Amino acid sequence: MRQFVIVGHDVPTTADFSLDDLPGAGRLDVLCRAVTASLLLSHGIRDDVRVHLVVDDALTIQFDGGSLRGLHPDERSTAARVRDALAEREEAIGHVPVEISPGVQLIRVGFETTVDELASEGTVCLLHEDGNSIADCSPPESPVFVLSDNQDFTAAEQELLTAVADRRLRLGPERLHADQAITVAHNWLDTSGFSAY
Amino acid sequence: MRQFVIVGHDVPTTADFSLDDLPGAGRLDVLCRAVTASLLLSHGIRDDVRVHLVVDDALTIQFDGGSLRGLHPDERSTAARVRDALAEREEAIGHVPVEISPGVQLIRVGFETTVDELASEGTVCLLHEDGNSIADCSPPESPVFVLSDNQDFTAAEQELLTAVADRRLRLGPERLHADQAITVAHNWLDTSGFSAY
Repeated sequence: MRQFVIVGHDVPTTADFSLDDLPGAGRLDVLCRAVTASLLLSHGIRDDVRVHLVVDDALTIQFDGGSLRGLHPDERSTAARVRDALAEREEAIGHVPVEISPGVQLIRVGFETTVDELASEGTVCLLHEDGNSIADCSPPESPVFVLSDNQDFTAAEQELLTAVADRRLRLGPERLHADQAITVAHNWLDTSGFSAY
Repeated sequence: MRQFVIVGHDVPTTADFSLDDLPGAGRLDVLCRAVTASLLLSHGIRDDVRVHLVVDDALTIQFDGGSLRGLHPDERSTAARVRDALAEREEAIGHVPVEISPGVQLIRVGFETTVDELASEGTVCLLHEDGNSIADCSPPESPVFVLSDNQDFTAAEQELLTAVADRRLRLGPERLHADQAITVAHNWLDTSGFSAY
């Protein structure tokens, strides 16, 4: 299982936004590209991937590649899936997940709870310019990548990540968008151990 | 210089399409993601990149990272740049480029002319499942990657590419979307030769 936590700092927590201006909706465009980069191949969905989209440290939308249906690669349709989930926010009580559609759940948990739970399930990987080059190391079996939107992690998020991160990794010399980083990470995982690929 | 030829088979050749339905506009969403994957880093434009977006084998829109300004990563704003270029199609006469905005040009040439010209400028790289793994080879100095939208190349395009391709490369075991393939190719180029990255 590969898991990706994607943190949206300014994305709306209600469904009250226009699909015609995703950058204006707290850079939801960035988050949608990160969701699809995590889950989609050219001809299908990666069934061994789970995405946790943290919305304003208040709600988390989970996308499970194993049961997800009909996710399209364009930003607008993915944003519509996010909007559908946020429309059910009043149904999310306590930590009980609300099923929005097959493979999509909304949970009333923020960054810390999401990351703490995943830290017990897999190897938390933080992308960092001072990390070890992925060219020089083998990937963990159950990686949990934690990425931010267009903003840096807050000081509190950074502190938590420093405490739970098992690996600090560097993808290359250039600083990438979240979706690009996810794509490179997937390629690293796809190609490692496949001597015949 | 890194160059990317991106072939849109069904994209409109006029500006008469809605930004609200990019998948319905000949999968312009695919092409926009490929354009931004080619040109954008997290905090800027790759100034050593040129993109040639071939529109229905009739027109080519060039994006030059060295002089381009204000390209945003979301699909819709990139699609608006494409639409602005197509709105000037009547101005594109012969093979004389029409300047649309800094770094964006429209030229009345199709696939063959575009690829033939670029073949004299750099090393044409074709992504193919039977190609050599990028992990096992060094990148060329001036690569020209040729990628298709969500469709396979036509028989005629394939024939031309077979004739001019200098390298056949495989990025990994999974079949990727065009923008994902571009991101992996960039990472390969970024990290090759940077022992200290």
